Amino acid sequence: MLYVPNPAGSLAAGVAAAAVLFFAGASGAVEPAHPAGDPARDTTSVPTSSVLGAESPRIHGDGRVTFTLAAPQAHSVEVAGGDGLGKGPFPMTKAAEGTWSVTIPPPVPGFHYYWFLLDGVQVNDPASHTYFGYGKETSGIEIPEPGADYYAIKDVPHGEVREKWYFSGTTGEWRRAFVYTPPDYETNLKRRYPVLILQHGSGEDETGWTRQGRAQWILDNLIAAGRAQPMIIVMDRGYALRRGEPVPAFTKKLTVGELDRLFGTFGDVILHELIPTIDASYRTIPDRDHRAMAGLSMGGMQTLFITLHHPDEFAYIASLSGPIMGGSNASQPVDESLHQPFDPAAGYDGAFADPAKFNARVRLLWFGVGTAESFMPGIDGAVAALKKSGIRLVYFQSPGTAHEWQTWRRSLNDLAPRLFR
Amino acid sequence: MLYVPNPAGSLAAGVAAAAVLFFAGASGAVEPAHPAGDPARDTTSVPTSSVLGAESPRIHGDGRVTFTLAAPQAHSVEVAGGDGLGKGPFPMTKAAEGTWSVTIPPPVPGFHYYWFLLDGVQVNDPASHTYFGYGKETSGIEIPEPGADYYAIKDVPHGEVREKWYFSGTTGEWRRAFVYTPPDYETNLKRRYPVLILQHGSGEDETGWTRQGRAQWILDNLIAAGRAQPMIIVMDRGYALRRGEPVPAFTKKLTVGELDRLFGTFGDVILHELIPTIDASYRTIPDRDHRAMAGLSMGGMQTLFITLHHPDEFAYIASLSGPIMGGSNASQPVDESLHQPFDPAAGYDGAFADPAKFNARVRLLWFGVGTAESFMPGIDGAVAALKKSGIRLVYFQSPGTAHEWQTWRRSLNDLAPRLFR
Repeated sequence: MLYVPNPAGSLAAGVAAAAVLFFAGASGAVEPAHPAGDPARDTTSVPTSSVLGAESPRIHGDGRVTFTLAAPQAHSVEVAGGDGLGKGPFPMTKAAEGTWSVTIPPPVPGFHYYWFLLDGVQVNDPASHTYFGYGKETSGIEIPEPGADYYAIKDVPHGEVREKWYFSGTTGEWRRAFVYTPPDYETNLKRRYPVLILQHGSGEDETGWTRQGRAQWILDNLIAAGRAQPMIIVMDRGYALRRGEPVPAFTKKLTVGELDRLFGTFGDVILHELIPTIDASYRTIPDRDHRAMAGLSMGGMQTLFITLHHPDEFAYIASLSGPIMGGSNASQPVDESLHQPFDPAAGYDGAFADPAKFNARVRLLWFGVGTAESFMPGIDGAVAALKKSGIRLVYFQSPGTAHEWQTWRRSLNDLAPRLFR
Repeated sequence: MLYVPNPAGSLAAGVAAAAVLFFAGASGAVEPAHPAGDPARDTTSVPTSSVLGAESPRIHGDGRVTFTLAAPQAHSVEVAGGDGLGKGPFPMTKAAEGTWSVTIPPPVPGFHYYWFLLDGVQVNDPASHTYFGYGKETSGIEIPEPGADYYAIKDVPHGEVREKWYFSGTTGEWRRAFVYTPPDYETNLKRRYPVLILQHGSGEDETGWTRQGRAQWILDNLIAAGRAQPMIIVMDRGYALRRGEPVPAFTKKLTVGELDRLFGTFGDVILHELIPTIDASYRTIPDRDHRAMAGLSMGGMQTLFITLHHPDEFAYIASLSGPIMGGSNASQPVDESLHQPFDPAAGYDGAFADPAKFNARVRLLWFGVGTAESFMPGIDGAVAALKKSGIRLVYFQSPGTAHEWQTWRRSLNDLAPRLFR
């Protein structure tokens, strides 16, 4: 049997079954072609996405991946996932003992969400850890990228990731942010640090940048190499509704105005609650020149909306694969606006209208995209229009990666060294 | 539709679907009979186990719970879970549109793991967050306990929970521990703190005590009330195999000797790697009189094994629902040993053989159990035998709760005030 769960067994049996669980974290599911994935052989490691002892999914030496699920009574099992995995759904075939499997072509390196379709229902792989994406807990697979160890945990000084809970009067809820403090934070007790607010994408949550993105190790490695300034990174939950505001209907097609209003609520949380909480709780340098905001996808849209409407609060601005809304008509659906060309003079209530003034105030405007992303034409167009209008910016392209985490890991690795210089 | 996932949709559609995700963390899945679960109404809250916007499971005002899953093509759907949920499996019935549901009698209050059986396969509820249990990511439901707010987040000073990674030479892997630092840790920079090592159970991992147990809020609340000493709590991953040691066969029935050997490896990690790492990284009081170890279930067994074999390292010892092995024959199966009476003179290589000496050295020996646990007779018997032999101990019973987290929350709430006095 590939996997032995024990949920319905007796408690005494559960204790005896502890044998299953007494082994180390390495899954053995990556074959030796990827030694960087084997923490027993060196101290550079990207932790596996598989649970203890899982034998599926298996990444073969040639890069192909075999997925397996025991489902003797099922009529149909498929596997599907993110763009870089090839999307699928890939039909699986049933062996005599009731185990379904399929081997797929080599995926693009990086982290990919995936799921099974079990008699048509999207379910998780019991052999995978789960990651919050698509508005729910979702299986994920880490495909090693040969030669890329910038997001691996290494034998360098490490910072810490801390849970910070704070009560939001705006939303009427306790909110959780994760806070990365750099390696010398606990030893260099007089030092104060700049702050990067770093946001996840739609359907993800505040866990994304550390669990999927490995932002903490990207920064540890950059700081150890002297390539990035030590900084505090704050990762908040990118959803906010005003206290008592009804939940939007699920089927509603958002307009630009509605999206802006939601972004405005989140901006109020960021500006009036999160930033003061962080400045009161950590040794920050609490001024504009030492404050950056960045986000991926929806988080990039939020970043542009919030920072461009509050230019006195942020000197560094980065949109990682953030779709660009071209239209500025509040009643237009977001979908349509995404297909309109961006007008630097009109967008964001004229934030870019005076390029000389903008360039003098904003220390970094950064855009990134993966070359396999469907959003690339829109981002390309906006970047070209902004440049043509005289706005100074950095444009980073991640070769061959889609709207997925490998794009955003590479993006952060390019962005972080440019901050607070 | 109760739940609108969007995994296979286009990225642009994903952005538009952000409407689904722009609401606050309160799920609305608890009806108003439980106002403590509604963070919009006060600042005392136990966060919901449901994902954003989920409408299932629904906890009714009378305590019954309705589970729902959309699975139009399925032939059979059931829900099953922990003892306090009533175990099940409870057959679900299919409505015309393909949604299956069942309403079950009021569960025991507290946190319960659960899962669906979808055409016989154990799968997660997409509407639930997942919690590591049974060796995999598992759905969970938080059933409010009327009047019990000791594990709720409240408007009191909060400590922090930090991820601490360290490389283990014993196992050849990077390991993750979670570290709770008390509320004044960042402001009272000269103060040093005692340390409690607090372990999860079999099939769980280092996330359990904060995600399922809410240990951080139990301590915040006790400290705010002046009932517990401020302390550092370290929660490690309770699995360890020596570097290069083969993974035990899944079907193997462990003997007492094999279990002791595995506990010994974990003990080496704790004593020679974890404790030195924590003492080097945090302002601990690094001596025996300020060091406690506690654990639940398997973690209780590990605690007794490690502390009783290293009496110079720990002054406080607590086993929360830890099954007691009566036999001391190394070749005996664990299962059999659990059914033998405990002999204080022989157990743990004679650690209890001289009660006067034991009582003089150990500042607290604490046992806990839920009165609905199948392990209770064994624990009762061991406690009675130890008391009769003259060993001083505290015995805590949690009324009506099973081998589940509400027992261990109550246990920690009783235990923590007794530590470091």
